[in-house]
Amino acid sequence: MISNSSKFSLVQVRGTWIRQAEQHRLAEGKVSEAKIYENKSEHGVSWTVVSPIVFTYRVIQCQNLLDPTNDTLLWGHLGKEELKGTMDNSKPVKRIVVIDETVNQLYGSQVTHYLEARNVVHKILSLPTTEENKGLELVTKILEDIHKFGIDRRSEPIIAIGGGVCLDVVGLAASLYRRRTPYIRVPTTLLSYIDASVGAKTGVNFADGKNKLGSYVPPVATFLDRSFFQTLPPRQISNGMAEMLKVLVDARLTVESDLPRMALMKHRGLFELLEAEGRKMLHSKLQSCSEQEDSAAASTRIAIETMLEELAPNLWEDDLDRLVDFGHLISPELEMTVLPALLHGEAVNIDMSFMVYVAHQRGLLTADEKYRIIQCMLALELPVWHQDCTLALVQKSLSERLRHSAGSLRMPLPTGLGCAEIFHDMIEDSILCQVYHKWTDELASSGNK
Amino acid sequence: MISNSSKFSLVQVRGTWIRQAEQHRLAEGKVSEAKIYENKSEHGVSWTVVSPIVFTYRVIQCQNLLDPTNDTLLWGHLGKEELKGTMDNSKPVKRIVVIDETVNQLYGSQVTHYLEARNVVHKILSLPTTEENKGLELVTKILEDIHKFGIDRRSEPIIAIGGGVCLDVVGLAASLYRRRTPYIRVPTTLLSYIDASVGAKTGVNFADGKNKLGSYVPPVATFLDRSFFQTLPPRQISNGMAEMLKVLVDARLTVESDLPRMALMKHRGLFELLEAEGRKMLHSKLQSCSEQEDSAAASTRIAIETMLEELAPNLWEDDLDRLVDFGHLISPELEMTVLPALLHGEAVNIDMSFMVYVAHQRGLLTADEKYRIIQCMLALELPVWHQDCTLALVQKSLSERLRHSAGSLRMPLPTGLGCAEIFHDMIEDSILCQVYHKWTDELASSGNK
Repeated sequence: MISNSSKFSLVQVRGTWIRQAEQHRLAEGKVSEAKIYENKSEHGVSWTVVSPIVFTYRVIQCQNLLDPTNDTLLWGHLGKEELKGTMDNSKPVKRIVVIDETVNQLYGSQVTHYLEARNVVHKILSLPTTEENKGLELVTKILEDIHKFGIDRRSEPIIAIGGGVCLDVVGLAASLYRRRTPYIRVPTTLLSYIDASVGAKTGVNFADGKNKLGSYVPPVATFLDRSFFQTLPPRQISNGMAEMLKVLVDARLTVESDLPRMALMKHRGLFELLEAEGRKMLHSKLQSCSEQEDSAAASTRIAIETMLEELAPNLWEDDLDRLVDFGHLISPELEMTVLPALLHGEAVNIDMSFMVYVAHQRGLLTADEKYRIIQCMLALELPVWHQDCTLALVQKSLSERLRHSAGSLRMPLPTGLGCAEIFHDMIEDSILCQVYHKWTDELASSGNK
Repeated sequence: MISNSSKFSLVQVRGTWIRQAEQHRLAEGKVSEAKIYENKSEHGVSWTVVSPIVFTYRVIQCQNLLDPTNDTLLWGHLGKEELKGTMDNSKPVKRIVVIDETVNQLYGSQVTHYLEARNVVHKILSLPTTEENKGLELVTKILEDIHKFGIDRRSEPIIAIGGGVCLDVVGLAASLYRRRTPYIRVPTTLLSYIDASVGAKTGVNFADGKNKLGSYVPPVATFLDRSFFQTLPPRQISNGMAEMLKVLVDARLTVESDLPRMALMKHRGLFELLEAEGRKMLHSKLQSCSEQEDSAAASTRIAIETMLEELAPNLWEDDLDRLVDFGHLISPELEMTVLPALLHGEAVNIDMSFMVYVAHQRGLLTADEKYRIIQCMLALELPVWHQDCTLALVQKSLSERLRHSAGSLRMPLPTGLGCAEIFHDMIEDSILCQVYHKWTDELASSGNK
């Protein structure tokens, strides 16, 4: 077989792209990062296109987001240069806001006041964004309203204000509308603040499967304001603390001799902070009382930093080894089974609690470490066991995981306080059974649901 | 305001990612292309995430795609290394094929024979993929069937066989299913071969808007086999020739003194080839009769090359200046208005015909060049005028374009035979009116629809 392979760069000349063999640069112009490889054989020609797309997005911690003197909600997604270009434009500012129904009852008048005070042409779409409604129909409803309102796909981002379901559903609608319309995430729950707000994932449930449909399109910006937590019921705060506990238990590596001591200390320190101050943070709803960075500010900041570290290099989840999957192996199945009895973070916590027992059985955690983690969960008023989290459900979840993860379990397990590793081998059924019964014996009567 | 900005790289150590200030490399490990910029001020912390995603896909021209001895349909999407890994795997091969209903009548038994002969566990889903049915409901139907059949999201690509609507709809379903499932495009019409098959766009119509919803997710591979054209009605061949004419008229730059003469000649030569041989190619349905590259093989190859050159550097259409938009300013509105009277390529051709008159009015084309292009279109049995392409429709389309293109018309116009440029200024209403009447006077009686 006669085969002949060539690599081409792409150069832009007078508005059009032309390809050039790498060794013969003939035209001057902007060179694309994309490449085309051409292969000619007796059977015909084939091309391989390699084209990188760069996603850029901002995550901004701020205060008083709904104060009309604060520019963030309208312009925080833009850099200084872009902002200048937009400000020079005399076009009226236009925004559609999709807001959760409950959040609208609490903050709707502030949002309206903000938009009116800033002379924004606007529409506020209030919707019941619950887990039960998280489907394609809700996406279609949002799309219809976006379409009717009419927005400039380049410069008028859709604003989502609410919990994780709201952010996920609006994200999916935005990523579909005209193949990509910018959107902004404003999480109002602790759970979505820590979890859904900082990555690229959007999604809805489909055919009894959790988040079976979706896309990986990050928002242009996420605005984080802890003051929304003031109106959350305590159970919702606990719910979010579970994802924070996940990050702190999980997202730190085993110590490497060549790493600065601080890296490990910082996260071990954080587990200890949550252990010591978690209950206080829970009852103060993570509000700060001084200008100084206190435990609430520090723990949320480090949780976000850790999530960004894990998500940024793996935005489209091409790498299947993800420590952020801790607590997410059994919980999707459990959540869909008991809906709406358990909140997402509660299901995640039950999963983590079980995995702590698996880690202990494997000798990764000492009895004392296991005890401290479970006690910390209980202090945060999180369930550590659930009757519907049966052995059969655990087995089914793990084999599903195996099937969807290219034949490897890829199970993150804590290997100490503030450190974790990924394990690949399936757990033997007899061991799983043994761990399950120990878990049930010790925790079924823990007083939580 | 005290402001403090830092740039961080991300390094992978023992399965976890940690960020490191660029100036202090402390840990050894894989370094991500992603970066995190952190900015601390008195108001709080903000982060900017910059994360590139690399899309890689293959476009393969081949013969006898449905011959069971040909590996392409099952394995053409993989490189040699990946293929080796897959072949070592003893798992049975599994594929779902979504095929247009009409194509299924013609080729369904060959597809079944292929899959049975190769022992593939399979499902063939035959659907009426027409422009009228191109909506979210069709996507949902496909998703339900994919879900019921059950596929490995990493290794079992969905295969779409049909025209542009089929490829667009399946592409959207695949990009949504579990946030991205690989898919393969097998175009069976000349139009989709030249146009829909080689880019990243997927889509459906929504709320009377053409392709208002969709995504930019390229297939893992596109397999191009001209033998499918043998069963196309002549009108469908003409329909595809319009997109080919677009590429040849349009996608070549104005001559640059430092470019090799060949670049321009090649494409001017191609216009002349289509002018001289187009009718013959039409009647032979672009089949080749010898092993040598003839006019059918050459023109399709160069059309694909030119499309790839324009698409690869702008896969997500971030750059709004696109020569490939030639023929696509008025045609979407026209197509939605007269559906199903006009095929896509026919609407595109009417648009191009009008734009040739605009170019002539501006002095970009000589009277002779204008005449030759229109004659070439007529020889290809394409409509050059339509009663429903009214002045009001033209005006509406251009102002919509202005609105959606960040305030600039970005109108590609031919500036000769085989060359084009982008023009930014809106056409004055009196001029538009004058061009429109001249176009109608000269072409209304052209004998085409």
